Amino acid sequence: MNNRLAKWLPILRWAPGYSRQHAGNDLTAAATVMLLLIPQSMAYALLAGLPAVTGLYASMLPLVVYALMGSSPALGVGPAALRSIMSLAAVGAVVTQGSADFMAASLLLAVMVGTLLLIMGALRMGFVAGFLSHPVLSGFVTASGLLIAMSQWPHVWGVPLSGQNLAVFVQSWWHSGTAFHGLTLAVGLGTMLWLGLSKRWLQRGLLLKAVPLLTMAVAIVLTEQLGWAAKGLAVVGDIPSGAMPWTLGPVLGVSWNTTQALLVPALLIAVMTFVEQVSIAQSLAAKRRERIDTNTEMVAMGGANLAAGLTGGFAVGASFSRSVVNDEAGARTPMSGLFTAVLLLITALFFTPWLSQLPLAVLAATILMALGSLLDFGSFAKTWRYSRADFAAQALTFSVTLLVDLVSGLMAGVVASLLLHIWHSSRPHIATVGHVPGTEHYRNVLRHEVITHPEVLGLRPDESLFFANARFLEDHVAAAVAAQPAVRHVVLQCNAINDIDASGLESLQTIDQRLREQGIALHLSEVKGPVMDRLQRSDWLQNMSGQVFLTHHQAVTALVGPNAS
Amino acid sequence: MNNRLAKWLPILRWAPGYSRQHAGNDLTAAATVMLLLIPQSMAYALLAGLPAVTGLYASMLPLVVYALMGSSPALGVGPAALRSIMSLAAVGAVVTQGSADFMAASLLLAVMVGTLLLIMGALRMGFVAGFLSHPVLSGFVTASGLLIAMSQWPHVWGVPLSGQNLAVFVQSWWHSGTAFHGLTLAVGLGTMLWLGLSKRWLQRGLLLKAVPLLTMAVAIVLTEQLGWAAKGLAVVGDIPSGAMPWTLGPVLGVSWNTTQALLVPALLIAVMTFVEQVSIAQSLAAKRRERIDTNTEMVAMGGANLAAGLTGGFAVGASFSRSVVNDEAGARTPMSGLFTAVLLLITALFFTPWLSQLPLAVLAATILMALGSLLDFGSFAKTWRYSRADFAAQALTFSVTLLVDLVSGLMAGVVASLLLHIWHSSRPHIATVGHVPGTEHYRNVLRHEVITHPEVLGLRPDESLFFANARFLEDHVAAAVAAQPAVRHVVLQCNAINDIDASGLESLQTIDQRLREQGIALHLSEVKGPVMDRLQRSDWLQNMSGQVFLTHHQAVTALVGPNAS
Repeated sequence: MNNRLAKWLPILRWAPGYSRQHAGNDLTAAATVMLLLIPQSMAYALLAGLPAVTGLYASMLPLVVYALMGSSPALGVGPAALRSIMSLAAVGAVVTQGSADFMAASLLLAVMVGTLLLIMGALRMGFVAGFLSHPVLSGFVTASGLLIAMSQWPHVWGVPLSGQNLAVFVQSWWHSGTAFHGLTLAVGLGTMLWLGLSKRWLQRGLLLKAVPLLTMAVAIVLTEQLGWAAKGLAVVGDIPSGAMPWTLGPVLGVSWNTTQALLVPALLIAVMTFVEQVSIAQSLAAKRRERIDTNTEMVAMGGANLAAGLTGGFAVGASFSRSVVNDEAGARTPMSGLFTAVLLLITALFFTPWLSQLPLAVLAATILMALGSLLDFGSFAKTWRYSRADFAAQALTFSVTLLVDLVSGLMAGVVASLLLHIWHSSRPHIATVGHVPGTEHYRNVLRHEVITHPEVLGLRPDESLFFANARFLEDHVAAAVAAQPAVRHVVLQCNAINDIDASGLESLQTIDQRLREQGIALHLSEVKGPVMDRLQRSDWLQNMSGQVFLTHHQAVTALVGPNAS
Repeated sequence: MNNRLAKWLPILRWAPGYSRQHAGNDLTAAATVMLLLIPQSMAYALLAGLPAVTGLYASMLPLVVYALMGSSPALGVGPAALRSIMSLAAVGAVVTQGSADFMAASLLLAVMVGTLLLIMGALRMGFVAGFLSHPVLSGFVTASGLLIAMSQWPHVWGVPLSGQNLAVFVQSWWHSGTAFHGLTLAVGLGTMLWLGLSKRWLQRGLLLKAVPLLTMAVAIVLTEQLGWAAKGLAVVGDIPSGAMPWTLGPVLGVSWNTTQALLVPALLIAVMTFVEQVSIAQSLAAKRRERIDTNTEMVAMGGANLAAGLTGGFAVGASFSRSVVNDEAGARTPMSGLFTAVLLLITALFFTPWLSQLPLAVLAATILMALGSLLDFGSFAKTWRYSRADFAAQALTFSVTLLVDLVSGLMAGVVASLLLHIWHSSRPHIATVGHVPGTEHYRNVLRHEVITHPEVLGLRPDESLFFANARFLEDHVAAAVAAQPAVRHVVLQCNAINDIDASGLESLQTIDQRLREQGIALHLSEVKGPVMDRLQRSDWLQNMSGQVFLTHHQAVTALVGPNAS
């Protein structure tokens, strides 16, 4: 088997060993996932500002593509809450919601997300996920959960409200007065109550998983029999039957300006999607002591998004709830996703007429009841206790997301964590070290009873030397030397230095030169192997005023003499 | 004496002890600096696209303000090459050069630079200098030197050419054919040759410093006597006599759009100015085992720029050449700057009529001959040998500066170094460690002959754990555990970990939880003091599956038993 090909098409690895027993497991899992996916996919389509049927489209070809290219057996690919609201926010910012252009731009966004993921995966750029720190991500997800609630609440309340951000939502609700639609509110709250109670009663098992779909069925029957639609209850309306459409035409028709405006949101959605997907897939894999290839995963999800955008869907990703259900229901290969897709196709072909009387309030209630997993207020307190800088980034992300918009919030978080990281590492801890009597150890003079010598200054920078802190070190050494006039030797203990970049080297040279002009020699001790390898590529080691010692103790002994202490 | 006041007005510290001998030294130094400053200030004014007299204005009040607020005794404040071309590029991008608006926008730019420096200094934001890595800075400075050469060459060639970037310059020269103005070229090249030779002949001493001013005087006399101006040699032209004007009016008259467009350039100029100033001031201070307060310096330079913008000048900074001359000529307090300002004021009041016949070619030649200190091509080779990532940032900065413009070049460099740094630290070296027989040391299994146990996996991440590499660690541990099925204990040797941020903690918890599901315990060893302090603020240490060991050897002994190896 061609290994390179199998890297990007993992199906080539598992398909040859595929057995009837595998098929049985995967089919059972697929049927279970379908029960969740039908209501969820339509609800998330509405959340993305699109017709409910696009949710079904987004759950067909993308799942097939992932089954061929993905490596995680149970990953629940398809529409998910976070991406849907990000898609709405991104497209809604440039095109009026509800227009044909809006639909086309949403398709294009999925294509762009897919393309970016394909490129990043092919270039092995998984490291981009590192830009989204945990606190920023959790601040963003919690704020998104609140925004999703704001966008869904009007469907339950029965009155149209705007909710791009908190200010707009409050204003919009204020202007609507206390108006609400009684029947809608009753259906919405009733569904929420029922979903909540059934979750408590039916601890787990297939029945619980069937609850959303059964609830939909009951709501459809009630609405039809009691003529609720005529009484003002908003319903999904006619859904076209048939397989997913081919939508390359509309995608290519989107204007260049819109495309440009969607680029940054597409990049953020792509990175978000990748982070979510990898964390879910890794959790699933770890249970079986397996591992996933993150680049393969990124490419597979890129393919899935491309497929979504070209067949009437919108941006897709991994759903945590469906992945867990899929895994627990016995999915053992990505084939289960393929089976799910076929079941969805059957639904789209034959059952859509039944869905027209589905109340929007029921779909909104489904989303609202699932928000619990997104809202994580406890994380703020935990982060505050652990690190003020991380908390600042988290709070900023949360506030900007809620008060301005999703893209600004995530961007603010990424930029803030970068700046805070640089700020933090620009002022590293630099200990002045002295000799712990009776040992060969050298420790911080402030924390330990140690012996020092007026003519030798030992400094231990507790950080790699790079551009952000290189000048801080220059300043620190200058100050320390100015404060100890008898100094003849400065020894940098380098055991905490994992790397020295070109700026760090330049600063060492500057420090060396300035010390030399004062008649002081600069020495290094305990330089790590990889750092030494690199330093040897410069000519400074040959020209430096002092020497490199294996241990700090050897340095001090050589410079002061063994009897000095 | 009020210490807080003295921090921001260092003059309060040294003025009480000011003696007649100090005054003598400072006055000698001031006279020497003036010899350089008169030609340089006018040349750099032309470089900034402004009338020559603005260079004199920029050398008066700013020097007085720095003398009151600055702490470096010999810093040569005033116009300098890099800032002038950055000012031209920033203002020229939004306002047509030569218009009254151009003048006003240049004044405003200096005010903005000053305000930003004041704010950053007051907020102790010296760390911003860290964003300009050494390679980015040297790439930028070298490219700027070439751009300065392009902008000055037409004054020597005698034909107007455009030179915002390399492409424009080449195109412009191409279109001008081989046309040149013989007399101008002769004067320009003659001046360059003379300056070069005199530098070689007069190794050092006062005479060398007087050469540029003497050259100017000779050129003025020749031009006047031989009527060169009438033969097409461009001259400075009439210069108004008198003290510097008060220019708050024009500054306030600049449109809001222009102000916005100048914000990013102003920020970059402010940071550049600060970096340059601190590196010069620190070199001077180190020679006497003194140190400077970087925040005080930033505020002082902020005040100087504010003064420049409000009295007809343009953005100012520290000049390396004048600082060295000032220091060598015996300047011992910032008073020397005040004396220089007074000498410049006398020049502006009484000697400007003499300057009208000064050929532009002579000023351009002065600038061209001083470019050597900016061009540092050797640095590219050195950086390439030492670090490919740093070289990439340097080459990018150089190319974008030269081919696009200065602001884009510097921005590209800053962003590239940040991204490369994150990329680099997102894939840290993680060694699998084993027992060096007969010792208590644990080393990399790939580099040393060590003993390992199938049920204990020892890993040593050689980097602090933070958001950029947190997920990499998750992935690495998952892969290592999947490859060693007998593992019951994973021990992270934390001696190279200087910090663990909230994302790192979250990843440790995720790793712990995933390992626990596989029946594996996670332990830590050799955790540093500050890292342990912080970990104790989370509740993970209480809940973790394993323990924290003082040394890695203790961990392995406890987990395997002392007789296992």
